[in-house]
Amino acid sequence: MQFTRFTDYALRVLIFVSQRPDEWVTIRQVAEAHDISRNHLMKVVSYLGARGYLVSQRGPGGGVRLQVPAEQVRLSDVILDTEGELDLLPPESDIVDELREPHERLGNVMREAVDAFIRSLESSSLADLVEPVAAPQRISATS
Amino acid sequence: MQFTRFTDYALRVLIFVSQRPDEWVTIRQVAEAHDISRNHLMKVVSYLGARGYLVSQRGPGGGVRLQVPAEQVRLSDVILDTEGELDLLPPESDIVDELREPHERLGNVMREAVDAFIRSLESSSLADLVEPVAAPQRISATS
Repeated sequence: MQFTRFTDYALRVLIFVSQRPDEWVTIRQVAEAHDISRNHLMKVVSYLGARGYLVSQRGPGGGVRLQVPAEQVRLSDVILDTEGELDLLPPESDIVDELREPHERLGNVMREAVDAFIRSLESSSLADLVEPVAAPQRISATS
Repeated sequence: MQFTRFTDYALRVLIFVSQRPDEWVTIRQVAEAHDISRNHLMKVVSYLGARGYLVSQRGPGGGVRLQVPAEQVRLSDVILDTEGELDLLPPESDIVDELREPHERLGNVMREAVDAFIRSLESSSLADLVEPVAAPQRISATS
C-alpha cells in the first residue's frame, strides 16, 4: 500500500513552498532539494495550479507559491485530489456468481477503512508540517 | 493507493476457501474462478500456509483449507501480513536539512492515518465476508 509517485511529489512541492511563503519557488529548486526529475515535477506543479493550491508567476524571478495560507490546506484534501479513486483492490468484473457477494462485502469493509484513514488526515494541515513548534518554557538551570 | 497484487490474491484465496470449509481446495479452482495466474497463486498459497492461515494436503483429492475458523481470521491481520511495511511514502534519505523535519512530521501523520485504517479492519473477519446474512423477519403480506 503506497501512494502514487504523483502524490509523493505533490506533497514535496507543497511542503517546499509552504516553507517559503514570501518567495516565488522554481521547479528547479524543488528538483534539486529532493534530487528528483524536473519533468515529473512540472506535471505535478501544473496540476496543483489547476486545483487551486498554487499560483504561478512567469518570467525571471517567477515561480510558484501557495494560493491560500498553509493552515487552510488539509492533507486529506491533497490526498483525495492527487490519489484519485482510493480503491485498494482492482474491480472484480468477471467473477463467478458465488464470489460476487463476499467480494462486494470486502469492498465495503475496505472503503470504510479508507474513510477512517482520510478522517485521520482531516485534522492536519500543511502548516502543521512546516511551522515551528513552540519551544517549551524553561527555567534557566545555569544561575 | 492500492494494495499489492499479493494482498489482492491472498484475499481471493482466503475468501474462496472460507466458502468451502469442508473441502480441500485446489489452486486450479481459485485460478479458474478468478481467471488469474496459477503461478502467482502458488506463491500466495505457500505464504498463507507458512503464516498459519492454511493447511494443505498433498496427493489426489488434496488441496488447502483454513487452519482456523473464518471468525478468527481478522482482515487487519491479513493486510498487515501481506502488505509488509505499510509505508505510504518512500523514505526521504538524501534530503536537505531544512526539509527533514517537515517530512518526518508528514511520515508521523501518515502512520497515524494508517493506524486508523488498520483499527477499522480489526472488527471484520473472513466470516463476515462469507457467512449468510440473517434474513429479516417478515410478516406475510399475501394473506
